[in-house]
Amino acid sequence: MNALRPLCAALLLFAVTPVFAAEEAATVLVIHGGAGLQREGTSQADEAALRAAITQALRKGHAELAAGKPALDAVTAAITVLENDPLFNAGKGAVFTHDGRNELDASLMDGATRMAGAVAGVHHVKNPILLAREVMQHSPHVMMAGDGAETFAKEQGVELVDPSYFRTERRWQQLQRALKEDAAGQAHAEPEVAKHFGTVGALALDREGHLAAGTSTGGMTDKRYGRIGDSPVIGAGTYANGQCAVSGTGWGEFYLRVSAAHEICARMAYLKETPAQAGAAVINEEIPGMGGDGGAIVLSASGQVAMPFNTEGMARGWIGADGVPHVALYSDEPLALPGEATTAP
Amino acid sequence: MNALRPLCAALLLFAVTPVFAAEEAATVLVIHGGAGLQREGTSQADEAALRAAITQALRKGHAELAAGKPALDAVTAAITVLENDPLFNAGKGAVFTHDGRNELDASLMDGATRMAGAVAGVHHVKNPILLAREVMQHSPHVMMAGDGAETFAKEQGVELVDPSYFRTERRWQQLQRALKEDAAGQAHAEPEVAKHFGTVGALALDREGHLAAGTSTGGMTDKRYGRIGDSPVIGAGTYANGQCAVSGTGWGEFYLRVSAAHEICARMAYLKETPAQAGAAVINEEIPGMGGDGGAIVLSASGQVAMPFNTEGMARGWIGADGVPHVALYSDEPLALPGEATTAP
Repeated sequence: MNALRPLCAALLLFAVTPVFAAEEAATVLVIHGGAGLQREGTSQADEAALRAAITQALRKGHAELAAGKPALDAVTAAITVLENDPLFNAGKGAVFTHDGRNELDASLMDGATRMAGAVAGVHHVKNPILLAREVMQHSPHVMMAGDGAETFAKEQGVELVDPSYFRTERRWQQLQRALKEDAAGQAHAEPEVAKHFGTVGALALDREGHLAAGTSTGGMTDKRYGRIGDSPVIGAGTYANGQCAVSGTGWGEFYLRVSAAHEICARMAYLKETPAQAGAAVINEEIPGMGGDGGAIVLSASGQVAMPFNTEGMARGWIGADGVPHVALYSDEPLALPGEATTAP
Repeated sequence: MNALRPLCAALLLFAVTPVFAAEEAATVLVIHGGAGLQREGTSQADEAALRAAITQALRKGHAELAAGKPALDAVTAAITVLENDPLFNAGKGAVFTHDGRNELDASLMDGATRMAGAVAGVHHVKNPILLAREVMQHSPHVMMAGDGAETFAKEQGVELVDPSYFRTERRWQQLQRALKEDAAGQAHAEPEVAKHFGTVGALALDREGHLAAGTSTGGMTDKRYGRIGDSPVIGAGTYANGQCAVSGTGWGEFYLRVSAAHEICARMAYLKETPAQAGAAVINEEIPGMGGDGGAIVLSASGQVAMPFNTEGMARGWIGADGVPHVALYSDEPLALPGEATTAP
C-alpha cells in the first residue's frame, strides 16, 4: 500500500489541476439597437450617429470585460449607454404610449447563476436596466411592474427622473401620426416592426467564461392597455444560462408566443445547433412563419456569435478581446463575426 | 393517356381521403389546484371540499369536450369553476398583497395556433382567465397589466366586481400573520410554497387532437412591488403547442428563471422525452436543484399525462373520454394516469 502512495498523490494532483487553469476565455460583447431600422427615412447623419452610439456602447462594455469584471457589468454598462442616447427606443428617446407617456421595460439575466431581474411599465426610472439589476440582486423576485417597481426603485436609491426627461420630438411626432391614423380608422402606415424600432440589447462573455444577457425598450408606439411585450419577459426577450445568451428585438407578441430567447437556447442545448443555426430557425423561420418579424443576438459560451434578423436593418455590433469594434446597420452590409474574415454579402 | 385517367382518379381519391378520418382523439382534461397543500392545517372537511371542487371542475371541462368544443373552452370552463371557489388562490379566495389587496394574474394558450393571452395585477376582474381569453382573441397583444388591462376588460364587457368580492377571512388572517412576522423581522413561519398554495391550472386535449393550457392565481401572500410571478408569463407558468401543454404551480421565481413550461415542452420536442420524463427533469430535478419547489401538470397530444410535484401535496385530477373523474391530493395517494391501472404508491 505504502508503495502506491506517491503514485496516488501524483494522480490526485493531476486530477485536481485544471489543464487549462491559466487560460482565460476570450471576452466578447454583442449589441443590438433594434431590428426595425429602414433606409427610407434614415438620414446619413442618423446612420453615422447610430454607428457611433453602438461603437461607444461596445467600447464601454469592453472596458468592463478587459478590467476582468463579470459579464453582467459589461451588459449593464453597454445598455446604459444606449438608454441614455435619444436615438434608441429605450430610456431617453423611448416611444410614446397611446396616452402620451413613456413606459419602459427591461430585463437582465446572469447565465452562470440563472438569476434574473425584470421591470415592466415604469415611468420615472432613468435607466430601467439598472432597476432590473436591483430586482435581481436585492429582491427575492424576478419581475416587478408599474408603481410597485417604482416604489422598489426609490427604496434602492435608483436614479429617478421627471417623465419629461424621456421625451423627444421625433417620438412625439411618431405618436401624433399614429393617433391621426387611429382617429381616421386607418391602419398605421408605419410597418409594425418600425413601431418597435430601437429596442436595445447586449450579451457578454467574460474572462471566467460566464455569460449574461439584457434588453431594454420603450415598447411600441401608441401601445395601450398596459401592454407588456417580450423585452421584460425572461425566456421571451432575454435569456442566459451556462451555454447561451440571447436578446431579442422585434414584434414582441410573436417572441412571447414562441418563448423566443429560451427556444434558441433550448435548440442549442438539445439539438446541438450553433448560435447561427438556432437563431435562424427561430428568427428567420419560426417567427416569420407565424406572421411576425424582428431579430436577435445570440452568444455561446465558446464565443460564437449570431445576429439573425429578417428586416431591412438591425443596428448591431460586437467587440472581442482585441477591443476592435465591428458595427453594421443593414442586412446587405458585410460584418465578419468572431473568427471569420470579412466578406462581401 | 386516356387509359390512365381512371387509375389517376382512383389514386387521387386515395391520396385525399385521410385513412383515419372517422377516428377522433380521446379527450383528456387535467387540472391542478396548487402544489403547496400540506396535511398539517388541512382538515378532513377541507380535503373533502378540495376533492369536490376539483371533481366539479373536471366535470365542467369534460362537458365541453364531450360536446365537441375546443380544448380552450374546456380549460376556461374548468378554471372558472376554481376561480369562483374560495378554496383556491385564484379569483375569489386569492391571497392578499402586502398592501391588503387581492391582485390577480392569469394566462391562457391555444396549442394549435400558439395564440396566447395573459393579464397581470388586476383587482376588479371576477374571472381573470376570461380576461386572458379576451386579450388573446380580441386584442393584438399577448400580455396586459394593471389599470390598462382593466380598461380593456371594461371595453370588452368582461364581468367586473368590487374588490371586496375576492376577500376571504382565511386569506386575510394569513396576511396578518405574515405582516406580524415582517414587523418582528422574523422569517415567515409559513414555508414559501404554502404562500403560493392554490394557484389553479388546466390542460385539455379535444376531439380534434388540439391542446390548450391555462393558469390563474392570486400570487403570493404579502407580495410587494407589483411582483409578477410565473402564472401570467407565457413560457414560464403556461405553455401549449401542437404536441404539449403545461401549467405550473409553485415558487414562481424559479419557474421564470428556467422558463419551466416551455422547457418541459422543449425537452419533449427535442429530447423525445415523455411528459413524465420531461416533467420530472424540470420539476423534480432542475427547480429543486436551484432551491425552488412546486409542481406542474403536463399533457401530450397523444393523451399522455404527468403530474410531477416535489411537495407534500398538490390537489390534482384528470378526466378522460369516459367522463370518470380521478382526483388526488397528496403525494402518497394512488392516482392511476390514463392507460394505467391504479396501484398503491
